[in-house]
Amino acid sequence: MNRVRAVVYGVGRMGSIATRLMLDKGVDIVGAISRSPQKIGRDLGDVAGLGIQTNVLVEDDPRAVLSSRAADIAVLTVSSYMADMFDHFRVCAETGVNAISLAEESLYPWRTSPNETARLDKLAKVNGVTLTGSGHQDVYWLNLVSLMMGTAHRIDSVVGRASWNVDDYGPEVAGDQRVGDTPGDFRRFLDSADRPPTFGRNTLDALVADTGLTVTSIENSTRPEIADSDLYCHTLGITVPAGNVIGFTDIDTIRTAEGTSFTFEMTGSVYQDGQGDKNDWEIRGEPYLRVTNPVVPTQMTTCTQLVNRIPDVINAAPGFITVDQLPQLKYRAFPLAAYVAGR
Amino acid sequence: MNRVRAVVYGVGRMGSIATRLMLDKGVDIVGAISRSPQKIGRDLGDVAGLGIQTNVLVEDDPRAVLSSRAADIAVLTVSSYMADMFDHFRVCAETGVNAISLAEESLYPWRTSPNETARLDKLAKVNGVTLTGSGHQDVYWLNLVSLMMGTAHRIDSVVGRASWNVDDYGPEVAGDQRVGDTPGDFRRFLDSADRPPTFGRNTLDALVADTGLTVTSIENSTRPEIADSDLYCHTLGITVPAGNVIGFTDIDTIRTAEGTSFTFEMTGSVYQDGQGDKNDWEIRGEPYLRVTNPVVPTQMTTCTQLVNRIPDVINAAPGFITVDQLPQLKYRAFPLAAYVAGR
Repeated sequence: MNRVRAVVYGVGRMGSIATRLMLDKGVDIVGAISRSPQKIGRDLGDVAGLGIQTNVLVEDDPRAVLSSRAADIAVLTVSSYMADMFDHFRVCAETGVNAISLAEESLYPWRTSPNETARLDKLAKVNGVTLTGSGHQDVYWLNLVSLMMGTAHRIDSVVGRASWNVDDYGPEVAGDQRVGDTPGDFRRFLDSADRPPTFGRNTLDALVADTGLTVTSIENSTRPEIADSDLYCHTLGITVPAGNVIGFTDIDTIRTAEGTSFTFEMTGSVYQDGQGDKNDWEIRGEPYLRVTNPVVPTQMTTCTQLVNRIPDVINAAPGFITVDQLPQLKYRAFPLAAYVAGR
Repeated sequence: MNRVRAVVYGVGRMGSIATRLMLDKGVDIVGAISRSPQKIGRDLGDVAGLGIQTNVLVEDDPRAVLSSRAADIAVLTVSSYMADMFDHFRVCAETGVNAISLAEESLYPWRTSPNETARLDKLAKVNGVTLTGSGHQDVYWLNLVSLMMGTAHRIDSVVGRASWNVDDYGPEVAGDQRVGDTPGDFRRFLDSADRPPTFGRNTLDALVADTGLTVTSIENSTRPEIADSDLYCHTLGITVPAGNVIGFTDIDTIRTAEGTSFTFEMTGSVYQDGQGDKNDWEIRGEPYLRVTNPVVPTQMTTCTQLVNRIPDVINAAPGFITVDQLPQLKYRAFPLAAYVAGR
């Protein structure tokens, strides 16, 4: 059985975890790519903090690495948006290497970046490779919901609520989430902001596409989250007074000609003690259904899904193939090669 | 597009609901089978309480019905165990009609009834049809858990807990669940009882088979559920005094050579006010995961899955094909024929 050969494309926090998981699953890491001068030339094991030498040096030329290692797949942990991902996906396709990415938009980019996605799809088909986006949203926001929807007779609306803690992501993100704003500051921010589509939107696009329903409208609104009482924000080192902003909730809604609507409310805010990430979906119709994850270890499940999806991506037909088109994700008890067709 | 043609095989409570759901989904009901003299010869719409005439009369000869209607599928709602199901599945296979059943054991009967299942598998292949078991356990106890397991890196144990209300199922079931027993009565029942394998066992068999792990031991134990305070059992019309039995929990555990264990605790007991059916699964390992359904409308989801699975069964390869081998269940927004390959 030939082992799976992977290139680690991006060696930050997520790429480092994914590297460890792949090594555990019998994957040969045959290359590592970073543009950080602090990482280039060092052993991947050191950069990823694995406590072992991998004998793979971090390099800075994606095309050189991808075209020379006979890799089955590149694991991309470099960006969130398709505008930035385009060149990364393209070099994988042009060098004949399948790719899986945790870029949130790449989960389902056909509606938010149709031109880039169509070009990549064509390039992937020409080169016989599969390009796919996965990550936390693969199961928790998309396939878990799609599966539960499979147990409904009639669906009037689907309403999802997820949350993440601003304090997990550093001061820059806390600033982006407007932590500490007065309500007036926040209104002015909303009026002036030119924000890209949310990742909740990409999730809903995938959910709706999976049903075959016809989209009639797409709406987005934003609601500030307000501190009930004074709340300390660890990442900024400030106490937000009661009445000020501790983050916000993006609310996306897609309506369809058939009458079913889909709403996703995603909240990024400073948590109070004991508050945890949330994932909670209601399916309203006949019957009323609900599914929830009482614990949501988002960073780990981002990486586990990226790694466990690898065999599905290698097995898939060429093209830009979204995860709603792949088989139901499975636990990989054995080396990943055991799940690759023909190995 | 040719409509899906179905025979309703069993016209009790579940068969009646399934009939309504199929009519809603554009299925042509081309036959109805019952052995009840009170139902035979009457219109299916009357027997099922649909408030409409279907112009399908309930008949009592399965072979005559199945061999004459060019049905795509028979929907079986007649028994729980494979010993009873064998003849029902056989007549479907012999008449060339695919079949889907809600018999709990048929979800995954390869280990609890290997001979019957192998014979049916062979017969199905010879006749080019697919035989499948679905029902509530398809998604809620099997595929939901399997999907969540797909987001784990390493699984040490899987622990599921489900419950159902004795008062939902009539006095006979309440008696079977030992409602009202003293603890001494219950011990004597356990010592003398020769009970068949639980349906939790079939669920775990499917989960383990889906992982490819090697079974080393299978254990079953039973724990009485004891009334904390006096509790009224509606279906028996008695008050169970504190300290006596209000039902019991079956606990199945499968251990594997690879170290992962699977446990399912299923509780059937008299509920207190406000208590609802439960479905709660923990996946212990890296990371720790949990998924739960705060509401569990078991009877409806039994029927919705039976109906929504129909296209998958028609599309599947011949044989006795368990639902872990079928595509991820999807919502059927359109007539079922839209999901059948080649229609």
